[in-house]
Amino acid sequence: MPAPDPEFAQRVRQSFDRQAAMRTLGATLESIEPGHVVIGMAHRDELTQQHGFIHAGMLAAALDSACGYAAFSLMPSDAAVLTVEFKVNLLAPARGPRFRFDARVVKPGRTISVVEGRAMQTEADGSDEKLIATMTATVMTVVGRDGLNH
Amino acid sequence: MPAPDPEFAQRVRQSFDRQAAMRTLGATLESIEPGHVVIGMAHRDELTQQHGFIHAGMLAAALDSACGYAAFSLMPSDAAVLTVEFKVNLLAPARGPRFRFDARVVKPGRTISVVEGRAMQTEADGSDEKLIATMTATVMTVVGRDGLNH
Amino acid sequence: MPAPDPEFAQRVRQSFDRQAAMRTLGATLESIEPGHVVIGMAHRDELTQQHGFIHAGMLAAALDSACGYAAFSLMPSDAAVLTVEFKVNLLAPARGPRFRFDARVVKPGRTISVVEGRAMQTEADGSDEKLIATMTATVMTVVGRDGLNH
Amino acid sequence: MPAPDPEFAQRVRQSFDRQAAMRTLGATLESIEPGHVVIGMAHRDELTQQHGFIHAGMLAAALDSACGYAAFSLMPSDAAVLTVEFKVNLLAPARGPRFRFDARVVKPGRTISVVEGRAMQTEADGSDEKLIATMTATVMTVVGRDGLNH
Repeated sequence: MPAPDPEFAQRVRQSFDRQAAMRTLGATLESIEPGHVVIGMAHRDELTQQHGFIHAGMLAAALDSACGYAAFSLMPSDAAVLTVEFKVNLLAPARGPRFRFDARVVKPGRTISVVEGRAMQTEADGSDEKLIATMTATVMTVVGRDGLNH
Repeated sequence: MPAPDPEFAQRVRQSFDRQAAMRTLGATLESIEPGHVVIGMAHRDELTQQHGFIHAGMLAAALDSACGYAAFSLMPSDAAVLTVEFKVNLLAPARGPRFRFDARVVKPGRTISVVEGRAMQTEADGSDEKLIATMTATVMTVVGRDGLNH
Repeated sequence: MPAPDPEFAQRVRQSFDRQAAMRTLGATLESIEPGHVVIGMAHRDELTQQHGFIHAGMLAAALDSACGYAAFSLMPSDAAVLTVEFKVNLLAPARGPRFRFDARVVKPGRTISVVEGRAMQTEADGSDEKLIATMTATVMTVVGRDGLNH
Repeated sequence: MPAPDPEFAQRVRQSFDRQAAMRTLGATLESIEPGHVVIGMAHRDELTQQHGFIHAGMLAAALDSACGYAAFSLMPSDAAVLTVEFKVNLLAPARGPRFRFDARVVKPGRTISVVEGRAMQTEADGSDEKLIATMTATVMTVVGRDGLNH
């Protein structure tokens, strides 16, 4: 999957850095390739639900950003990305202590792209990886809409 | 839809109060009825995505809690609630300044319940309500699993 | 929700009549209003799964057509409708003997519309209605694409 | 993924053969391994929508059966399988002439299993494979419920 914009990685990074929600999660961009983005995160008490696991919505936030930017990496330089919908299956309690959110574009499209994301938990050193959630996301390429800059 | 546990509202409130993620969102319980829960929230800069709207994952977090507690309100007193999956459609940018997340159980079940949630944005005084996202969630009643207390 | 094309009902009917799959289901259009379509169907042995209930995919077919045409009713006269994605929750075994698939547009859009569908089973005379499945569908308005005529 | 029941393939085959809906599709079981089932199908005019492509619901039917049996292959011999929900993304028009529905269990569980399915179209000889749809399905293991025999 070639990226039409050679500056795609910088464009993804700049947009990600404007997502205050990712700072609230403590999430960082680990890898940006055309159609494939990885986000990393560590356990934070302020993101938990009643059993002490990371809240499903917080996992969805990291997965949604990973999916959106995987699609965004394949878009032209003047496009913005909007999530149309996503679906999350929760497979195991999100204990951590580390998390990795890996998103790959399954079908890039001029208007609509479909992306699959996987959330894994690992030990602090990245070992002992376990799949804890999956996402399927539909994202839209938006060009020329006021107020949406990347 | 009668709640089998007369203490359902207190049980929901206590569990919600243990969700640190809801404090991070600034979300509060506005209403608890059997099979029907409403959560409120105001715009917070630290929850935004790159265009300044509330991040879809943060909406999903509030919707998921609303859906989970709507189902939880109908469960027996010794049960815990786990989200199996949810799907979110994003209908409009989440500008706020206020948000309301309204969840109703569509099908209560002994093991599996299905809940529908709706996210609305309003003016600060609650007027001018607009639907901005929908959720369909499948939640599971868990009884007697170690480490899951409500 | 006003329909921009005054001929919307005829346009829906003509397109539905070209869906051979609906004849295979024995499905018929019961009602066409702007943004709201109802399809009816009776139990047929050749649509069943291993327990003798209507197969979930056959319910999905009728729900998808209902959702697609609910959105199509609000589209301009030169548009075609394509389903982007749908999600189905199965709430109870589809015994019949009659079924009703009711779809309403939640959010009409120039490019993307979101539609909610509900599958009900009833007695032969339409009484004793019971919700057996829900669908959320994302459909796309397509204009000027070769080979897609309504 | 080992199958707890050594007779899993025969059990899947017998249940599939009771699905009249699969005969209506002209669908056949191509492969049964523990946690992985493949179904094949050819274009049939009576399964089409208004543009002459296979109706999305008919794809969903084949995908749902593939997903359900992939999970069923890992269940104990006295269990029945029920679909809780599925979500389908449609990536390209289903022209055929051949289709392959490939389903793999992502997370087997005592009560709830999550399965991913992919629909591909190919030429008549199986060449030129193209991904046309994806499914994520949640299925439930049911034991000891009257009227549900496999």
